[in-house]
Amino acid sequence: VDEGFGPANLPYGIAVSRRFDGPRVVTRVGARVIDLAALAEAGVVRREPWWSQPSLNAFMAAGPAVWAEVRDRLGEVAGELVSSDAATRSRIEAALHPVDDVTMLLPIEVGDYVDFYASEHHAANLGRILRPGQDPLPPSWRHLPIGYHGRSGTVVVSGTQVRRPAGQRRGDPDPAFGPSERLDVEVEVGFVVGVPSTMGAPVPVEAFAEHVFGVCLVNDWSARDIQAWEGQPLGPFLGKSFATSVSAWVVPLAALSGARLPVGSAGRPLLPYLREPEPWGLDLSLELLVNGEVVSRPPYASMFWSPAQMLAHLTVNGASVRTGDLYASGTVSGPEPDQRGSLIELWGNERFLADGDEAVIRGTAPGADGTRIALGEVAGSVSPARTRR
Amino acid sequence: VDEGFGPANLPYGIAVSRRFDGPRVVTRVGARVIDLAALAEAGVVRREPWWSQPSLNAFMAAGPAVWAEVRDRLGEVAGELVSSDAATRSRIEAALHPVDDVTMLLPIEVGDYVDFYASEHHAANLGRILRPGQDPLPPSWRHLPIGYHGRSGTVVVSGTQVRRPAGQRRGDPDPAFGPSERLDVEVEVGFVVGVPSTMGAPVPVEAFAEHVFGVCLVNDWSARDIQAWEGQPLGPFLGKSFATSVSAWVVPLAALSGARLPVGSAGRPLLPYLREPEPWGLDLSLELLVNGEVVSRPPYASMFWSPAQMLAHLTVNGASVRTGDLYASGTVSGPEPDQRGSLIELWGNERFLADGDEAVIRGTAPGADGTRIALGEVAGSVSPARTRR
Repeated sequence: VDEGFGPANLPYGIAVSRRFDGPRVVTRVGARVIDLAALAEAGVVRREPWWSQPSLNAFMAAGPAVWAEVRDRLGEVAGELVSSDAATRSRIEAALHPVDDVTMLLPIEVGDYVDFYASEHHAANLGRILRPGQDPLPPSWRHLPIGYHGRSGTVVVSGTQVRRPAGQRRGDPDPAFGPSERLDVEVEVGFVVGVPSTMGAPVPVEAFAEHVFGVCLVNDWSARDIQAWEGQPLGPFLGKSFATSVSAWVVPLAALSGARLPVGSAGRPLLPYLREPEPWGLDLSLELLVNGEVVSRPPYASMFWSPAQMLAHLTVNGASVRTGDLYASGTVSGPEPDQRGSLIELWGNERFLADGDEAVIRGTAPGADGTRIALGEVAGSVSPARTRR
Repeated sequence: VDEGFGPANLPYGIAVSRRFDGPRVVTRVGARVIDLAALAEAGVVRREPWWSQPSLNAFMAAGPAVWAEVRDRLGEVAGELVSSDAATRSRIEAALHPVDDVTMLLPIEVGDYVDFYASEHHAANLGRILRPGQDPLPPSWRHLPIGYHGRSGTVVVSGTQVRRPAGQRRGDPDPAFGPSERLDVEVEVGFVVGVPSTMGAPVPVEAFAEHVFGVCLVNDWSARDIQAWEGQPLGPFLGKSFATSVSAWVVPLAALSGARLPVGSAGRPLLPYLREPEPWGLDLSLELLVNGEVVSRPPYASMFWSPAQMLAHLTVNGASVRTGDLYASGTVSGPEPDQRGSLIELWGNERFLADGDEAVIRGTAPGADGTRIALGEVAGSVSPARTRR
């Protein structure tokens, strides 16, 4: 599990531990986390109030020049870790902790959470399941990245147990109420906004890297029976809002510079605000595990809409973004049957999550130095529904 | 305009002024605002850090016992205002400011913003317009309060100019892009959460008053052409997310105790979690003005779902609420043609908002002392779309 956390990665998270006071910004190299507040104390990175905070937000708001500077210094630290020179190592010794000695918290204070629907394979699969006999894609699908707002107050960090939601589902003649019988997962990739924008001023596709700080993995837990009954005409609500899990680590965009590749919308006729010189996505290899068994390998390379297109669309009406805003890709599904990112696509209505089941999403990407880098996993197990009424 | 701000009202807001330092929690009596930080200094209300903050959130989180205590003291202060005893008045003199000398800010730091669809007349009107020939209400409509999440980062206070959004709309054969040609308003009532709930623990209908602090007015600006093209299958997104305006004043629930009346769902067969002994709504008389002319008088008394039912539904799946969460009723439309709360319902496709138009929503309610109390107005004028591409 320490693989993928080499010097090409250097993700950020928030840790607490009996070994230091309060939450700290940390990065990770192998099996060790590095406390940035201690590095600042040692004069290795700039002293700022950012490092002893319960979220990455203050650091993320500082902008790309600062992100690059800090990443440079952390790269040097990662080199010193393997240095044979004791004096060199002693400079950073106080900042090092075994990863098993810390508890990772939710890394960001989430502003608005938006969920897109950017995989053509997923949208088509769901369209065939939910609206059989009709065109599986809505008419606007290839013209704009469809999305909706989710609940930011129930975004939780990997490892948090997820209670099975209760709710209404279709019944005959009257709706039934009870624990969801169709609890599903959605394998997604999330993008975290660092630098805010101004209300009324759209963020053009070219300005993506001036605003977006990094990438996390997302499990958009979904209760299919609740979702199907409530969803018209205003979209998903309680079928999704009970929990959304994110990885504890946010991988900075700079770590993914070697993972860029064209997305499905490249070369398509698009309205000008969605045109990029080279619309690029990310070559992330994802895995969905249920109870330790890999059940799917969704390739993020197969997405239609790019991260920059999603942000440009989200703001083209003048909506502003804030530090901590999270937007997710929507379920990542590839063209092959074993590349689907949700259980309803993989298994139809045959099987959903049982109480006690654990779902884990993992991902890796090619690093700039030829190694592979890991995205932090998103794990969550299902606890039984509350029985109240 | 000072009418409706008598001692039966005592709403809360956030003000800045050259007359004092920083934002302050204030209430209003007639043409004067009363600075609670100054009252605390004078020993009239408890000294707390709440009063010198940029939002009501800290005060709202303190809970119903504190809300009642502070309201009692403010009631005494309102009495002292008209006292002929100079010594009595001098105690509060330093806290008083002419309402014209302060600028009101957004009163709450918004957590999640949810918008319901709780007026049967509105839902049926829109269903007939958008899905002609079909049953105007979706099958779940009378079984649950349909809702969705909106964008909390673009909630703005009354008086903020709203820029006309640009976006995609349906075209033939390809979609068009440009400033919305169908900019509309929605007259709504908002409920503000003070006391948070725990994830996994639904808030039952009986616990409504333990969590909800007060009421504001809401204009859910809507670009009908953007909304129609993007909305399937995930609901409203950019057609709504550019701006949502709220009143500067939050009227505490206690002020509305004389305004309770049964809602449309009273006596209907409902699932147990939505049953209230007496599901009550509020007898709020609303007005929509365009450029100073009253164009509609939507009665909040005509709503189907109650505020407590909306909160119980919102949390029945285990979703938590946070201090500052805002949930709105959805457009308030009564049964009569001149009681509709949106322009598309009032005027079809004949007329929408032009640049420079001002929309104002006002509301009053019966106060407990026989006078009428005013909800703060929500005003906003339309500025031209950005012309960028």
